[in-house]
Amino acid sequence: MAGSSHGKLFRISTFGESHGVGLGVVIDGCPAGLDFDLDFIQSELARRKPGQSRIVTQRKEEDGVKVLSGVFEGKTTGTPIGMVIMNKDQRSKDYGHIFDKFRPSHADYTFHAKYGARDYRGGGRSSARETAARVAAGAVAQLLLRHYGISIKSYVSQVGSIVLDKSYKDLDLSQIEANDVRCPDAEMAAVMEQEILTVRKAGDTIGGVITCVATGVPAGWGEPVFDKLHADLGKAMLSINACKGFEYGSGFAGVTMRGSEHNDEFYTEEDGTVRTRTNRSGGIQGGISNGEDIYFRTAFKSVATIIQDQASVNEAGEDVTVTGKGRHDPCVLPRAVAIVDNMAALVLADHCLRARANRL
Amino acid sequence: MAGSSHGKLFRISTFGESHGVGLGVVIDGCPAGLDFDLDFIQSELARRKPGQSRIVTQRKEEDGVKVLSGVFEGKTTGTPIGMVIMNKDQRSKDYGHIFDKFRPSHADYTFHAKYGARDYRGGGRSSARETAARVAAGAVAQLLLRHYGISIKSYVSQVGSIVLDKSYKDLDLSQIEANDVRCPDAEMAAVMEQEILTVRKAGDTIGGVITCVATGVPAGWGEPVFDKLHADLGKAMLSINACKGFEYGSGFAGVTMRGSEHNDEFYTEEDGTVRTRTNRSGGIQGGISNGEDIYFRTAFKSVATIIQDQASVNEAGEDVTVTGKGRHDPCVLPRAVAIVDNMAALVLADHCLRARANRL
Amino acid sequence: MAGSSHGKLFRISTFGESHGVGLGVVIDGCPAGLDFDLDFIQSELARRKPGQSRIVTQRKEEDGVKVLSGVFEGKTTGTPIGMVIMNKDQRSKDYGHIFDKFRPSHADYTFHAKYGARDYRGGGRSSARETAARVAAGAVAQLLLRHYGISIKSYVSQVGSIVLDKSYKDLDLSQIEANDVRCPDAEMAAVMEQEILTVRKAGDTIGGVITCVATGVPAGWGEPVFDKLHADLGKAMLSINACKGFEYGSGFAGVTMRGSEHNDEFYTEEDGTVRTRTNRSGGIQGGISNGEDIYFRTAFKSVATIIQDQASVNEAGEDVTVTGKGRHDPCVLPRAVAIVDNMAALVLADHCLRARANRL
Amino acid sequence: MAGSSHGKLFRISTFGESHGVGLGVVIDGCPAGLDFDLDFIQSELARRKPGQSRIVTQRKEEDGVKVLSGVFEGKTTGTPIGMVIMNKDQRSKDYGHIFDKFRPSHADYTFHAKYGARDYRGGGRSSARETAARVAAGAVAQLLLRHYGISIKSYVSQVGSIVLDKSYKDLDLSQIEANDVRCPDAEMAAVMEQEILTVRKAGDTIGGVITCVATGVPAGWGEPVFDKLHADLGKAMLSINACKGFEYGSGFAGVTMRGSEHNDEFYTEEDGTVRTRTNRSGGIQGGISNGEDIYFRTAFKSVATIIQDQASVNEAGEDVTVTGKGRHDPCVLPRAVAIVDNMAALVLADHCLRARANRL
Repeated sequence: MAGSSHGKLFRISTFGESHGVGLGVVIDGCPAGLDFDLDFIQSELARRKPGQSRIVTQRKEEDGVKVLSGVFEGKTTGTPIGMVIMNKDQRSKDYGHIFDKFRPSHADYTFHAKYGARDYRGGGRSSARETAARVAAGAVAQLLLRHYGISIKSYVSQVGSIVLDKSYKDLDLSQIEANDVRCPDAEMAAVMEQEILTVRKAGDTIGGVITCVATGVPAGWGEPVFDKLHADLGKAMLSINACKGFEYGSGFAGVTMRGSEHNDEFYTEEDGTVRTRTNRSGGIQGGISNGEDIYFRTAFKSVATIIQDQASVNEAGEDVTVTGKGRHDPCVLPRAVAIVDNMAALVLADHCLRARANRL
Repeated sequence: MAGSSHGKLFRISTFGESHGVGLGVVIDGCPAGLDFDLDFIQSELARRKPGQSRIVTQRKEEDGVKVLSGVFEGKTTGTPIGMVIMNKDQRSKDYGHIFDKFRPSHADYTFHAKYGARDYRGGGRSSARETAARVAAGAVAQLLLRHYGISIKSYVSQVGSIVLDKSYKDLDLSQIEANDVRCPDAEMAAVMEQEILTVRKAGDTIGGVITCVATGVPAGWGEPVFDKLHADLGKAMLSINACKGFEYGSGFAGVTMRGSEHNDEFYTEEDGTVRTRTNRSGGIQGGISNGEDIYFRTAFKSVATIIQDQASVNEAGEDVTVTGKGRHDPCVLPRAVAIVDNMAALVLADHCLRARANRL
Repeated sequence: MAGSSHGKLFRISTFGESHGVGLGVVIDGCPAGLDFDLDFIQSELARRKPGQSRIVTQRKEEDGVKVLSGVFEGKTTGTPIGMVIMNKDQRSKDYGHIFDKFRPSHADYTFHAKYGARDYRGGGRSSARETAARVAAGAVAQLLLRHYGISIKSYVSQVGSIVLDKSYKDLDLSQIEANDVRCPDAEMAAVMEQEILTVRKAGDTIGGVITCVATGVPAGWGEPVFDKLHADLGKAMLSINACKGFEYGSGFAGVTMRGSEHNDEFYTEEDGTVRTRTNRSGGIQGGISNGEDIYFRTAFKSVATIIQDQASVNEAGEDVTVTGKGRHDPCVLPRAVAIVDNMAALVLADHCLRARANRL
Repeated sequence: MAGSSHGKLFRISTFGESHGVGLGVVIDGCPAGLDFDLDFIQSELARRKPGQSRIVTQRKEEDGVKVLSGVFEGKTTGTPIGMVIMNKDQRSKDYGHIFDKFRPSHADYTFHAKYGARDYRGGGRSSARETAARVAAGAVAQLLLRHYGISIKSYVSQVGSIVLDKSYKDLDLSQIEANDVRCPDAEMAAVMEQEILTVRKAGDTIGGVITCVATGVPAGWGEPVFDKLHADLGKAMLSINACKGFEYGSGFAGVTMRGSEHNDEFYTEEDGTVRTRTNRSGGIQGGISNGEDIYFRTAFKSVATIIQDQASVNEAGEDVTVTGKGRHDPCVLPRAVAIVDNMAALVLADHCLRARANRL
């Protein structure tokens, strides 16, 4: 209840600081009998890890996950799956110069206000390193969803002012991993990559937008009032470091449409399936999936750590200068794609299990 | 756990259908000793209720709330507060023509897919009428927050394509209730009102944006990982009917800013308070409040019920025409202002109580 | 989370004080499609209500339940079921003499210590009147269980020192309602009834034991670690007013048996069902049901309200005399049978739904 | 939600199987600023571990705990505390002979029924080895409680038919650790030890009772309805392997007392503290602590594993003989004392934090 758990039936609890001994996650609620594909989990972690390309931080973290429990003879047993990732490349001394300073737009000051003290090394618990644990858990959620034919695909659709102005339907989503940016449009990806390199050279950072599409979700998942499917997706996305906004279906732009333009007409397919001709609803109506593609967009601000001097204060309230140091991401988007995918998987896996209790 | 509860320590459970016997809410977790101001609760319901002006639905619902428990001699006792609102103006026969039809962009089909049946009268549980219960509970949350000097103010900042292009800081928020639209800028309010009347005349509906500002929240509320303060606010907003998007602080627009532009510098006030010179963070850093104003925006699509014929299918999968009837809102925004205020209050009241467990 | 909710998937929240306006319950999570039998619910309330016989309190409470939501055309809809019972026979002035006194072994002092104030009329929230709401909800749980062939039967097996020393297997459980005590053995029931009348005449009260048997629960319900089926049953029973102890299967007496005597041997029935020859396990092994009868015993102390003078203190800490007045139960057991039945039903219904998430 | 978590604000999630890679626990909700005493945690684990004396199993498990997160510079940070214990002395081949057999009164069959498969080695998740993780977490809870002057002491008060027939008030609880049985009465401890050795020699096992006393708990902890303090204690105890019953205060024996005998009179101490002259309530009234000692008793059955042949069936439903092998406890009580202490600590720590939300 202290905020490091996610989900109700497919429930995870993460732990670990950026420069502590290690981090990890416990999944309580994964059904028994699922083929446990450790290679897939490791491959998802590889998509998130630092040092994977020249447009991300050059920190080296192997992020090798060790499974402690809940798996037997290659299958999940239904009991909690404990996974740990030990920290290795901890250059904690890199942080000695800021131990009592509040870095602008970081969580240093708010942690201090909340807890009275904090592990200042690399942001401690507020570091995005925590998301490695989520990715490991989300990859297990993906295994569950895959079993039911559901797939989730996220990609970078905006970097700074460079916008990929196409619907996901007009893109070849198999090309997401074809470049370092994780934008499936090769041409736009090249422009985005150039922008990130320019920003890095300036010792600065930049934000952007990630678009996510989930296909194969059957009609009937999600709850009608507070735990609407898109509300849970929204919360999950907003819980990712640096995320500033979430919209699904027609989103903010759709508010200018009249009802007669926005409504999605129903029709029946030859096999009897009820479908909609358009999908401004984003696959969710009244908080419950309708069987169409679920799609949404998430905004990420520029990373707060920059390689420039900034004015700030320290714990004593004195004026100080925060000097940029360390190895940081000029743009978090390429790595965040894996986090978006796996947070979405955690939400869907939870509602997959919850949907089983609806009827006699 | 079936989705009709909100909050962890200040926890509410709502119940009730649009055309059932009544609706209500139980608040479990309101601290003892709070002055219980029933007039205020009723005044918040009045801001949400139908028939309050010519730009909203002309249904008549008195929404008189009856308090069954948890209050003694004018104060909360710490035990659950049960409140009910009985349904009165139920023209259920208005809905006979659609009992087996799936209205476009309504929750008819998804409820059917999820539960195998549904109370079709007025949308049943999926009706925004459910939000009356939330408003009653949220008003109690506001009483708690007010005790700690916290105030929440929402207003309509966009209707269709008509955008109020000013920061909340440049508006006189005491003027929100001065017009039917609940836009504090009188000039823009008049334009918005005209737009809504035009849309109504066309038997159509239109969406918009509501901006919300919470002042007085102390530093240290919110949890660092999944239950970030803005993540809980986002989920709460997205759980409101017709809400399609949420952004806080610099939001989607802010992604184009570089870190050096976006970061909020800290400084110390004369009284020793740590403040930020700018507030692109929207009062929240690392998921925890920093003492600055909290502000966010929520997008609402046009209402799905229109007074026009629409093609659809029925439960048997046959093609049908859905004919627009009944008394509906041309634009949900003016009434939704009260819902946004009170959902925000529920989130903040919950984190107010949760923050007490942080330290020895 | 403030303690007035029960269950995770079949989740209820109760509210209401003894002498407030009314009390009620919200059930969030009852599956859709269940035949809603209001007569049965009302009949369960009748088994709990005061004034039903000469061995219980002579207060008159009709306990007529009103269903506000969640039911449509005779079936549950899957949305929250709200039920209220209005208070009528409130002789609140009966309590004026004790408004600032702490009655011995009541919750007056602890409520005061916890909340700083309390609704002193009839015990307020600490009154067993709250259990009417549980019984209404539990009756719905029974409807769900009945659908799956599960039945729950409780009976009085001890009053004071009078012990019914037979296994439930040697009793005709159809005779529970045949007498006012709710003990299925007519001879013992008569002795118990006499004891209760003797105690009443002395202005005193007496305790006892209720035994409960659930038949038809399939193997596989319950969770292996903290949420063991018997742990949840135990908590549910201990949450009933005046309950002091819980034991299942061989219980406290069984601790003297050696493993070789206590173990339940498995065998296979002709139809392939795995069974145990004995059932010292009480139908639960490792926290999970094994398909055998589930049985347990609960101890209830004598009611704290007696018609005698008692020494105590008031809120100011001064010595006072508490004078016994009002209409109270000489023995809570006959009415508590309905509470035990329905609390057990709530636990089993919850695990019924939870068990659906175990496997792919 | 799948049953391996405990607590609402001081919340733990355990994971790990008897013969898997390792086990562990995440504590989410421990307040910041607590002195973290790893030696104390390790000493609590030593009280639970196998091989500590000649009357417990001779398995060797070092149970060295490794802290991965949530502690910085010797103090808790308020973020999740992750702890792991790696498995070492895994003689998994000891279990080859029972891989498809259902051992009598074990959880083999119920796990099979629930999950369709199971890790059969040493009982997997159903093994009491899981309680090592609880003890580690409970020791942290004890550190929190100790900070507020609260102490918890459990001891063995019955082994088989040998009963220590004294109140905890007439015992010197500092002598609990003075013998291997953990019975503070040296004379009775010697008799109990002899009984355990006799039972072991017979290849058999025996049960007993543990009594627990918590002192220093202030008035006002616990919730009035479902989450009564003793209900949560009861559930916690019943969640321990082999526990068959729980009673607090006067318990089962108290049901024979009349109200006039059972009620605890209040009086005021010189310093103004409200006290009771007797304590049949066991320190809890209406589910809320009253400031007196909290005491309760828990029944443990004999261990199911015996070194004798037993008739049973296998997964195919065939008759088989289960042959006793391995290194097991003749009596679980001496080791369970540490588990009772620490489960009680977990419950009290949770209510310590919950009590902070009661009032303005």
